[in-house]
Amino acid sequence: MALRNPISQFCKHISRSSISRASAMSPQHVYSQHLAPQRRSMATVVPPVTQDATSSKGPTAMVFMNMGGPSTTDEVGVFLSRLFADADLIPLGRLQSYLGPLISRRRTPKIQKQYAAIGGGSPIRKWSEYQSSEMCKILDQISPETAPHKPYVAFRYADPLTEEMYANLLKDGFGGGKGGRAVAFTQYPQYSCSTTGSSLNELWKWRTRLEGKGSTNADLSGNITWSVIDRWPVHPGLVEAFARNVETQLATYPEEIRKDVVLLFSAHSLPMSVVNRGDTYPAEVAATVYAVMQRLKFSNPYRLCWQSQVGPSAWLGAQTSDTVQEYVKKGQTDLILIPIAFTSDHIETLFELDQEVIHEAGHPGVKRAESLNGSRVFIEALADIAVKHLRSGESCSRQMGLRCQGCKSERCLEQKKFFVGQENLLAVR
Amino acid sequence: MALRNPISQFCKHISRSSISRASAMSPQHVYSQHLAPQRRSMATVVPPVTQDATSSKGPTAMVFMNMGGPSTTDEVGVFLSRLFADADLIPLGRLQSYLGPLISRRRTPKIQKQYAAIGGGSPIRKWSEYQSSEMCKILDQISPETAPHKPYVAFRYADPLTEEMYANLLKDGFGGGKGGRAVAFTQYPQYSCSTTGSSLNELWKWRTRLEGKGSTNADLSGNITWSVIDRWPVHPGLVEAFARNVETQLATYPEEIRKDVVLLFSAHSLPMSVVNRGDTYPAEVAATVYAVMQRLKFSNPYRLCWQSQVGPSAWLGAQTSDTVQEYVKKGQTDLILIPIAFTSDHIETLFELDQEVIHEAGHPGVKRAESLNGSRVFIEALADIAVKHLRSGESCSRQMGLRCQGCKSERCLEQKKFFVGQENLLAVR
Repeated sequence: MALRNPISQFCKHISRSSISRASAMSPQHVYSQHLAPQRRSMATVVPPVTQDATSSKGPTAMVFMNMGGPSTTDEVGVFLSRLFADADLIPLGRLQSYLGPLISRRRTPKIQKQYAAIGGGSPIRKWSEYQSSEMCKILDQISPETAPHKPYVAFRYADPLTEEMYANLLKDGFGGGKGGRAVAFTQYPQYSCSTTGSSLNELWKWRTRLEGKGSTNADLSGNITWSVIDRWPVHPGLVEAFARNVETQLATYPEEIRKDVVLLFSAHSLPMSVVNRGDTYPAEVAATVYAVMQRLKFSNPYRLCWQSQVGPSAWLGAQTSDTVQEYVKKGQTDLILIPIAFTSDHIETLFELDQEVIHEAGHPGVKRAESLNGSRVFIEALADIAVKHLRSGESCSRQMGLRCQGCKSERCLEQKKFFVGQENLLAVR
Repeated sequence: MALRNPISQFCKHISRSSISRASAMSPQHVYSQHLAPQRRSMATVVPPVTQDATSSKGPTAMVFMNMGGPSTTDEVGVFLSRLFADADLIPLGRLQSYLGPLISRRRTPKIQKQYAAIGGGSPIRKWSEYQSSEMCKILDQISPETAPHKPYVAFRYADPLTEEMYANLLKDGFGGGKGGRAVAFTQYPQYSCSTTGSSLNELWKWRTRLEGKGSTNADLSGNITWSVIDRWPVHPGLVEAFARNVETQLATYPEEIRKDVVLLFSAHSLPMSVVNRGDTYPAEVAATVYAVMQRLKFSNPYRLCWQSQVGPSAWLGAQTSDTVQEYVKKGQTDLILIPIAFTSDHIETLFELDQEVIHEAGHPGVKRAESLNGSRVFIEALADIAVKHLRSGESCSRQMGLRCQGCKSERCLEQKKFFVGQENLLAVR
């Protein structure tokens, strides 16, 4: 499938006359199509926002996309079955529908024990709902023109799933002939086809099922106009939030040894087959790490390592657990582990790092920096990223329009076309 | 071998009383030990610099370290034999001294043809001598306190080798009982144990052979005091120089398709065994790429890929040649290749990219950004990096003091101890 100039190519599919018709509408006309006259009551209370009805571009749905995690140990089975069914994350080929359930059933008891050990479930839903609703409150203040901002969460493998989120959007008066504006805001700071790409494929699938794929002109169809915040690896607020958590942990070491503490940034690894396909994640994670070290004025030696690899195939290293073990063996027992590619606690921090890697190191000098979780600096960063996106008129980054050179996924191609093409609709809003 | 707090540990080896004796010397006394009274005439003419003899910290030797390349096809054989003898670059285990010569002899005719195809030899010596002498001229102006600055080149596999450079240093009045100050300035912007690490191991070896390793107190021994500029992946001047060369090449595409041209940053690959050992190079190359894209305001889609892998073992990908082929197959035939981890032209740009990858792509839209070579912006960046280093009082970055977690090299350990330890001597100069 050819990909020459995906943006311009796609534009050809959109009737120029239909765009100019939409542009010719009066602002009131356009507005009335976007906003349901009688909005249903929202699940969470949105603070009242005074807005000029004729010029407002609101309301705006802010959809936080993430992988999610089981909230209770009972949900582990279904969580794993969804995870192993996702060929974007774990490509098992033609046998996916057979092998996926098999592997997930076999792993369930072990993983249930891990969730039991961290208190019975993942805190990711709690943090996602908190972060998104706090961000929306800030957005209502700093971006009145797109207010009110309504927070949604769409998880890839746990409730609320994308289809549930989309149904809520429609129920709340977005789309369904009434237009409206939604932003898919990935909560993975660095883009991987396995994570953000998978969530976007899922979002595109449900958009097509629930709103059809025929017309992409929301102003005529009354469909939701989507845009994507697809990566933000070096946003200064993100970097600041990480750096502060590192500084807090550094301060727990005696001053005379503090500068020799090794900072070990740890990110979820990727299979080398994904890296070699052209996935942008390793380079973006490295950019985050470098930005945090710049902010810390390179006060300490550091390394970037990769965790959570599974199975027999080759993954990107060095592995986090090996790295800690080797340094401890070399006598370097003052180490801070810094989860750098996930913004709230999850099984990989609370169990894998805290209860496996750190426990096995067996030395009090091996510690972990806190995850961002409820960090105010981080939530303000999210709002800053969002407001800049809303004002940019961009439907996604230029980088997102380019497929990986080794990509064979038709769904990925169609998904990119869809989101890139939304830019034409943003222009006439 | 333990590496707990390498800096503080090493300090114990240096007699505190000897340092305080040196500090107690009058400035004139210290100066007279550092500067040979009758300096021999230098190989290249250094512009006259007016300096205050009692407070000056000059002269300063600025040693550019790089891998080098054969200047003529006749030198290819000896170049390859040195290259395959370097276990830091190509670890062949116990059979290194047998396999190295064997492989280099077998590869010589093929590589000779490649050098013949690019004009008979590598331009790296010409560029290194030009860049270092031009940088020294700038340094004499902006850093009179460390002037005069004398340029040297030390190649790892071609003339002038490290031992030749060191002999010239001694001949020119540095060391040999007279003290003096030298800066080892790696010309690899991003640090790898295979490149900068190998050059530093070689420098440490020759320092030990020619000046002994016993005393590290240059003020008493009259040895050269060394410091290292070990990495500079996101220096703004470096980033600016890369970005301008990209912009120049982008301007050759018609305006209507310019924003869809894919930027393919290409760096020399590493074996996965080196990556998994903890080498910092992949992450630093990624930092450079991200910085260049930030400077370009993310105007284009881009990817980072890796070139020049050899042999059957696993290397870091995606491979540059595969990436170009796959994109061309997908119809994306407007591509700019950007060599991002080497600062002047070499066989990997002039032959591998220009005559192999671009030729095989068979499309006029596949081009290459110029290498930095004689770029004035780049040479000014080198001077800025150098002056900041000279004023910092640091003997190397804190990052350089930390061995990779998988490192087994005793030489690497000793080399790091040596350069980290030089910081104490810089403090009393």
